[in-house]
Amino acid sequence: MLRLKHVRVGVCGVGRIGCLHAENLACNAERAELVSVADPIKALARKIADRFGARMYASSREMIKKERLDAVVVATPTPTHAKLVELAVDAHLPVFLEKPIALTLKEADKIASLVNRSGIKFQLGFNRRWDPSYSKAEKEIAEGKIGRTLVVKTCARDPQPPPDAYIKHSGGIFVDECIHDFDMALWLMKDHVRQVWAMGTTLVYPQFSKYGDYDNAVAILRFSNRGLGIVEGSRTSTYGYDLRTEILGDRGQIQVENWKEHATRRWDKSGITEDQYPWFLTRFAEAYKREITGFCEYVARGDRSPVSADEGREALRLALAARESARKGSAVELSR
Amino acid sequence: MLRLKHVRVGVCGVGRIGCLHAENLACNAERAELVSVADPIKALARKIADRFGARMYASSREMIKKERLDAVVVATPTPTHAKLVELAVDAHLPVFLEKPIALTLKEADKIASLVNRSGIKFQLGFNRRWDPSYSKAEKEIAEGKIGRTLVVKTCARDPQPPPDAYIKHSGGIFVDECIHDFDMALWLMKDHVRQVWAMGTTLVYPQFSKYGDYDNAVAILRFSNRGLGIVEGSRTSTYGYDLRTEILGDRGQIQVENWKEHATRRWDKSGITEDQYPWFLTRFAEAYKREITGFCEYVARGDRSPVSADEGREALRLALAARESARKGSAVELSR
Amino acid sequence: MLRLKHVRVGVCGVGRIGCLHAENLACNAERAELVSVADPIKALARKIADRFGARMYASSREMIKKERLDAVVVATPTPTHAKLVELAVDAHLPVFLEKPIALTLKEADKIASLVNRSGIKFQLGFNRRWDPSYSKAEKEIAEGKIGRTLVVKTCARDPQPPPDAYIKHSGGIFVDECIHDFDMALWLMKDHVRQVWAMGTTLVYPQFSKYGDYDNAVAILRFSNRGLGIVEGSRTSTYGYDLRTEILGDRGQIQVENWKEHATRRWDKSGITEDQYPWFLTRFAEAYKREITGFCEYVARGDRSPVSADEGREALRLALAARESARKGSAVELSR
Amino acid sequence: MLRLKHVRVGVCGVGRIGCLHAENLACNAERAELVSVADPIKALARKIADRFGARMYASSREMIKKERLDAVVVATPTPTHAKLVELAVDAHLPVFLEKPIALTLKEADKIASLVNRSGIKFQLGFNRRWDPSYSKAEKEIAEGKIGRTLVVKTCARDPQPPPDAYIKHSGGIFVDECIHDFDMALWLMKDHVRQVWAMGTTLVYPQFSKYGDYDNAVAILRFSNRGLGIVEGSRTSTYGYDLRTEILGDRGQIQVENWKEHATRRWDKSGITEDQYPWFLTRFAEAYKREITGFCEYVARGDRSPVSADEGREALRLALAARESARKGSAVELSR
Repeated sequence: MLRLKHVRVGVCGVGRIGCLHAENLACNAERAELVSVADPIKALARKIADRFGARMYASSREMIKKERLDAVVVATPTPTHAKLVELAVDAHLPVFLEKPIALTLKEADKIASLVNRSGIKFQLGFNRRWDPSYSKAEKEIAEGKIGRTLVVKTCARDPQPPPDAYIKHSGGIFVDECIHDFDMALWLMKDHVRQVWAMGTTLVYPQFSKYGDYDNAVAILRFSNRGLGIVEGSRTSTYGYDLRTEILGDRGQIQVENWKEHATRRWDKSGITEDQYPWFLTRFAEAYKREITGFCEYVARGDRSPVSADEGREALRLALAARESARKGSAVELSR
Repeated sequence: MLRLKHVRVGVCGVGRIGCLHAENLACNAERAELVSVADPIKALARKIADRFGARMYASSREMIKKERLDAVVVATPTPTHAKLVELAVDAHLPVFLEKPIALTLKEADKIASLVNRSGIKFQLGFNRRWDPSYSKAEKEIAEGKIGRTLVVKTCARDPQPPPDAYIKHSGGIFVDECIHDFDMALWLMKDHVRQVWAMGTTLVYPQFSKYGDYDNAVAILRFSNRGLGIVEGSRTSTYGYDLRTEILGDRGQIQVENWKEHATRRWDKSGITEDQYPWFLTRFAEAYKREITGFCEYVARGDRSPVSADEGREALRLALAARESARKGSAVELSR
Repeated sequence: MLRLKHVRVGVCGVGRIGCLHAENLACNAERAELVSVADPIKALARKIADRFGARMYASSREMIKKERLDAVVVATPTPTHAKLVELAVDAHLPVFLEKPIALTLKEADKIASLVNRSGIKFQLGFNRRWDPSYSKAEKEIAEGKIGRTLVVKTCARDPQPPPDAYIKHSGGIFVDECIHDFDMALWLMKDHVRQVWAMGTTLVYPQFSKYGDYDNAVAILRFSNRGLGIVEGSRTSTYGYDLRTEILGDRGQIQVENWKEHATRRWDKSGITEDQYPWFLTRFAEAYKREITGFCEYVARGDRSPVSADEGREALRLALAARESARKGSAVELSR
Repeated sequence: MLRLKHVRVGVCGVGRIGCLHAENLACNAERAELVSVADPIKALARKIADRFGARMYASSREMIKKERLDAVVVATPTPTHAKLVELAVDAHLPVFLEKPIALTLKEADKIASLVNRSGIKFQLGFNRRWDPSYSKAEKEIAEGKIGRTLVVKTCARDPQPPPDAYIKHSGGIFVDECIHDFDMALWLMKDHVRQVWAMGTTLVYPQFSKYGDYDNAVAILRFSNRGLGIVEGSRTSTYGYDLRTEILGDRGQIQVENWKEHATRRWDKSGITEDQYPWFLTRFAEAYKREITGFCEYVARGDRSPVSADEGREALRLALAARESARKGSAVELSR
């Protein structure tokens, strides 16, 4: 553990992603000190606390009250986000909040409003922005390497569906899976979307239909400056985790291709074969480290949020508009 | 030139594509004999006739009347298609007709009706179906290699816009450029489209706006069996000719990537660099040869059209629906 | 067939490669006219002659005497090369001679001497020089794109062994298969080799041992200007035809990778799979066309041989040195 | 830091690689506890100790005597390896020793003998064996995926030369750079080398000549079971760090290609460009973590060394034989 000037962090919620943040705070983020973790599932809180040498709490409220923290990481279920941001605002603590910011625009508005009025430091957990490949793409676009951006195109495909219980409260494919892609589209185009048309279908896993959700979906976007966008999401890519993005400019194109686990290929009677990447946790391991390191940097001495509450709200607004378009079968306009 | 059992062919119209067919008939198609060419631009007809050892005519009508032909290739401007198919039908001659079948559904209906009633052999010039990469994709899908097809996605980008004079009569980006992609979508999904939503924009070449056309456009499709489709067209890929297709199935995915002119890469301070393909005529050189060879095979002894008039009409109907959707700003339904 | 100013060509020997040259002369080479073919196997000569509309001869001598030819293509078995070049020299006819120039240095010297003294136009059939990928590599090196060349590395692997009867008279793996690679090494480095060390082994096909030949072999080269080279040959690449070359310079590297038949890839549970190229005849179809077209250009109006007899002799000298090194188990020096 | 059952480790020597091991022990290896570091450069020892919360020593001897350690990592200059292994043997401590095992066969023999007689646990630092791509290759070969191995080929190119002062004591390109490749060749072929022929040249950096060293070198190998090998090393790949390996079997081929930092490509007028990997420390970051984690596993409960002293000695013997062959200009035989 590092002895440099620390940012003392408590983690609220240590499920899959919260536990990953705890580990990165304990082991990989230069300026971080993992002080404590809180989770209503006490056995889980204890296990993670022991593993990384932190204190444990069953209640986030209690942790925030008792510990001398410099910041909190909130990785609890999405419906609890607003309440936890409120606790942090009351304690004048910087917040790292997992994505999506909320499941409804009302909740997102509330969070953005709390954050903006209080002036606390706030960073949303859009991890993909910290991925070396995506951040290189953004940098090259910002440097004008492909000229004016015209069309953005994203593809996100999961190799299996989430559990039934999760689907019900996930917000649907556009909110749960494609929200990263909507954020990418907004971030890479540096523009707002004015209109979205979307379609969804359920062809492989009938359970999605039960909840008005889809296992495959597409959306097309029109931006303020008249650029276009395509967002494609799937739960049925049985061949692996498939995540690609491209941006067409008037002087070139940038592609972010799939990542590989190995640089190993086999040539035999079947042809030339390489592995596809299995899952997002390893795909974005580096991004998760950079994200939480970036948060500690921001807390320690930054003045501009790497991913603001307003940006999180905007991606959600777009995802909800896509969901509405798919359900209604007509275009949805987004006001300025 | 080959002395095997010949199919004696006359070519109507020897512009860019007609001349290419003439060359392939003269040099590359095993069963073919190029007998004559016709073009109202006499100097052009003479030049091509001389080059490939054929007779020349200024009038297709006269050529069909005077020459003892086994088949005609029609590569004249699209508005003349119906008239020339009529001449061929009257002469009981098999016809190879360049794409698109027509610019209006009315004309397409007329041609399909002429062909279907007369029973003449007819093949439409969707050259992409004959490309080794695309036909391998279709074959693997037909063999069930990726299971049930769920989503088809195409991308067609031209490195420069056509001349102004051409734009005006081209039918627009959906009809002129994307018609191949609509045909691919129908062919690979083996299904009909029930609904199309499209958007277009003009960001780089203002001349497109003059004619109600776009320099970039996207469309999403819903198929009868509930599959989805994405079609993307562009006139602004300054980096080269960019043509890709992919099909997602419930057991895998097939991608048709860009073709390369060279297998040569350079590694230097700028990174690792390879060339992008410059233009469709060389990209599809092999497909054009196979297409006209396939036509001669079909004339000599086939009984089922490789690309029927009805298929050409269906792709046009879809392209026109996309154009209408983009113009109206709403979905367009296609009846069965 | 083309009616432009012709180069009237007769082909001596219409086995696999001779037949390919005949076809390209008849169909693909702009300035060429295939006048006649000669082969002692009369049925073969007749078949090819009929197929391409040429006259047939059982004797090359008779063909050269009787026909009014502008050039001959010699694709007869290697031991007959010297005699046929002599006939062409006597008739003052330009010669295209298939590779290898000869199987012994003595024969190669004889041919080079005949050609050089007579001053006839002469081109050796190193088809790989005409391949778009390889010629692009050579051009970029000549333009200084990778600076001073330091190391050349070639790999040539055949998916199956030649027939036993062929092995016996082939000259061995270095002369038969690797001679192209030795030519590439000399051509791309623009230098002479001063020393060669080689090793061979027979691990899969015992028949090679019978003739003192190998099914896998490697050689390292030292050039006059102190560059280094690696040549690797194999008869055992059961996965396909595998042909790659790279050149390291002090400012970068150029790679010629394997060619693909398709731009199609499949993603499924086995990973991402693409086809490897099956065989050299299709791999180099374009190179064979360019080679014979280049020969006709050279005959019609060129003044410098694209591939001279001396270059053919130098590649053979290097191949024979490698064979000697592998047999003796010691380095072989090559004099200036 | 983790609170699981620990392996308490002291690190001797905290230069570039020693410091990396210290960091991985402190942050990334599950079973490890970094207890202390020792380096005669006190300021360096203090800095690293402070950074990772460990105690510092100026003397490895003192550290081993005073601390209650479970194992030591030795990353001191190669000439000190034997002495430090001796200290560890006297203290009955497991040792992780950086590569190369020694610079002379005599020293390597001494170390192997110390280790083998004492029976202490010992692991040599051939990090490449722990790289996911290389270990996948080895696993697939062991599973028989490519059948019997016939030829192994390695390429290792550094983008810049080491400092002059380093070159002098490095042992030369074969020992310093290619020792990894010799180890890979032995490990992947699961065989011994009987004969090596090597050539070196100095074309770009004249300083290498001063020390009888080369900036580019190649070697060919003959294995006991008659397989062949090619090893290529360079200090002049100005385009980046270039590291590739392939193994030909009688049923297929496995390639380990270069690793990428980004999955991002740009398409513009220059073509399609991606970055090459800049340097080995990042290339092998994961391998270094796995290596030291593997060592702690081995110390905690393993019984077979992942990389034994004898294997380190064998790779050195081969590297020294290559150096001798290049210097003498003749083959070098290696006894059983």
